[in-house]
Amino acid sequence: MHKERMTPKLPPHNWPTIEPGWVWLCGAGPGDPGLLTLHALNALGQADVVVYDALVQEAILDWAPQAEHIYAGKRGGKPSPQQRDISLRLIELARAGKRVLRLKGGDPFVFGRGGEEAQTLIQHEIPVRIIPGISAGIGGLAYAGIPVTHRDVNQSVTFVTGHDQSGNTPSSLDWAAIAKGSQVIVIYMGMKHIGQISAALIAAGRPMSEPVAVVTTATTAEQQVLETTLGSIEADITNAKLEPPAIICVGRAVLMRQVLDWQSQAAGAPPRNLDPLGRDDGTAASA
Amino acid sequence: MHKERMTPKLPPHNWPTIEPGWVWLCGAGPGDPGLLTLHALNALGQADVVVYDALVQEAILDWAPQAEHIYAGKRGGKPSPQQRDISLRLIELARAGKRVLRLKGGDPFVFGRGGEEAQTLIQHEIPVRIIPGISAGIGGLAYAGIPVTHRDVNQSVTFVTGHDQSGNTPSSLDWAAIAKGSQVIVIYMGMKHIGQISAALIAAGRPMSEPVAVVTTATTAEQQVLETTLGSIEADITNAKLEPPAIICVGRAVLMRQVLDWQSQAAGAPPRNLDPLGRDDGTAASA
Repeated sequence: MHKERMTPKLPPHNWPTIEPGWVWLCGAGPGDPGLLTLHALNALGQADVVVYDALVQEAILDWAPQAEHIYAGKRGGKPSPQQRDISLRLIELARAGKRVLRLKGGDPFVFGRGGEEAQTLIQHEIPVRIIPGISAGIGGLAYAGIPVTHRDVNQSVTFVTGHDQSGNTPSSLDWAAIAKGSQVIVIYMGMKHIGQISAALIAAGRPMSEPVAVVTTATTAEQQVLETTLGSIEADITNAKLEPPAIICVGRAVLMRQVLDWQSQAAGAPPRNLDPLGRDDGTAASA
Repeated sequence: MHKERMTPKLPPHNWPTIEPGWVWLCGAGPGDPGLLTLHALNALGQADVVVYDALVQEAILDWAPQAEHIYAGKRGGKPSPQQRDISLRLIELARAGKRVLRLKGGDPFVFGRGGEEAQTLIQHEIPVRIIPGISAGIGGLAYAGIPVTHRDVNQSVTFVTGHDQSGNTPSSLDWAAIAKGSQVIVIYMGMKHIGQISAALIAAGRPMSEPVAVVTTATTAEQQVLETTLGSIEADITNAKLEPPAIICVGRAVLMRQVLDWQSQAAGAPPRNLDPLGRDDGTAASA
């Protein structure tokens, strides 16, 4: 027995409706339910079925009380459904005339295999809508007070995945070029192979003393932030007993956390350093 | 005279409140009001003042009818307030005890100067909260049917800005390394210098035939998508008379638009090519 459909009380706008037989492929953001988009909330209120991944918070699913909730994610120890099986299940549900919401952690197109899922659906004549989400590599780092781009630090940022489908460090990655191409590098799913990755970056000329942050379960109440360096990161992750999911940020932008850690400041801690990059913007004297 | 405060009707959750004297620095996403986050909507309902940029849609401001709306963006022809003046204005408003919502297009930390603004506020003892937004380089491309990462295409993606604060191509960028480091490159604010940028990528070994897409005013009703190649992009932008704001995506992921252009499909157009990268995932025969 399903509970009553929750009518989303969104502000006035021409909100789209999920038609029966459609699949909406939607990013749920990095964790904090407040980082869900209005389109996602609108979808949660209408869906007959929500097919969700491991990183989608319970509180978000609670906003679709009328819907059947189907788990399709990977979780430590439990067997993980194959991508092919998930796609086939979505096709089956859509063909049964359900309004299907496929909810993925982060953004579906940022190392989320959303492109594959959408392609398979369209190949099977299932109509699709894509709803982007906040990616942990941007929004998760923001919750740690780290801007992925910052004046005088970087005018490019590279996002990489730390393992490929076989579980290995992606063989196609040119770490030397990445090290030279972007002053800030954001690594998704990089904990397992961080020793290999940090060694490759150092071999390519990045200093061992370069600041690095590891942010686990970013934006949730369990968020942890480790500040370390490229030379020490492997040992420090082990010592701190950190567990995935984690986002790793390499580069001087990490230092901005010393002034921008707004979560700690809201809890009463003063900023550690008002000018961690050693220059201000000229307003200090005059305001 | 301000209109009645609109109480946001958000789903049950422990929603934060803006305290008087605080500034919430918030991303408004690429354009579509449905891509706003719930935190942003919650903030719009509470703010006394909304200080907004050029790329923030009118419809979003309408959700803060009780608030004073202050324009702080750059718009063709009109003089642009200096970053320093914006920061000083925010400080002044906060010190006057206002609940201040600083609303920026996209994400505040992705080429948005949000780190500078937040730093200046914290230096002046103004408490700050950061609310990430959907960045156009991810969500805007998704509305054009382009996944910034895709299996068999790329395991890294680089985001770059096409001009620096002086309006020139950023001198610190190593285009040769970027060309080698990421199969997919997403360029923000790149229209003005696209000739120079595309020449640099070609000089670094990227083929002239490489697919490129230009997406202007992404996610809005005025969205336009130009599909071209690295060798033809400069002429094609001129011929198509495209205007900023634009996101430019370089790489084979652009081909996925041939199957994933969900907006055209929703309007009745069939997919142009069900398998643009020349392989499927094995479900075609069995489902």
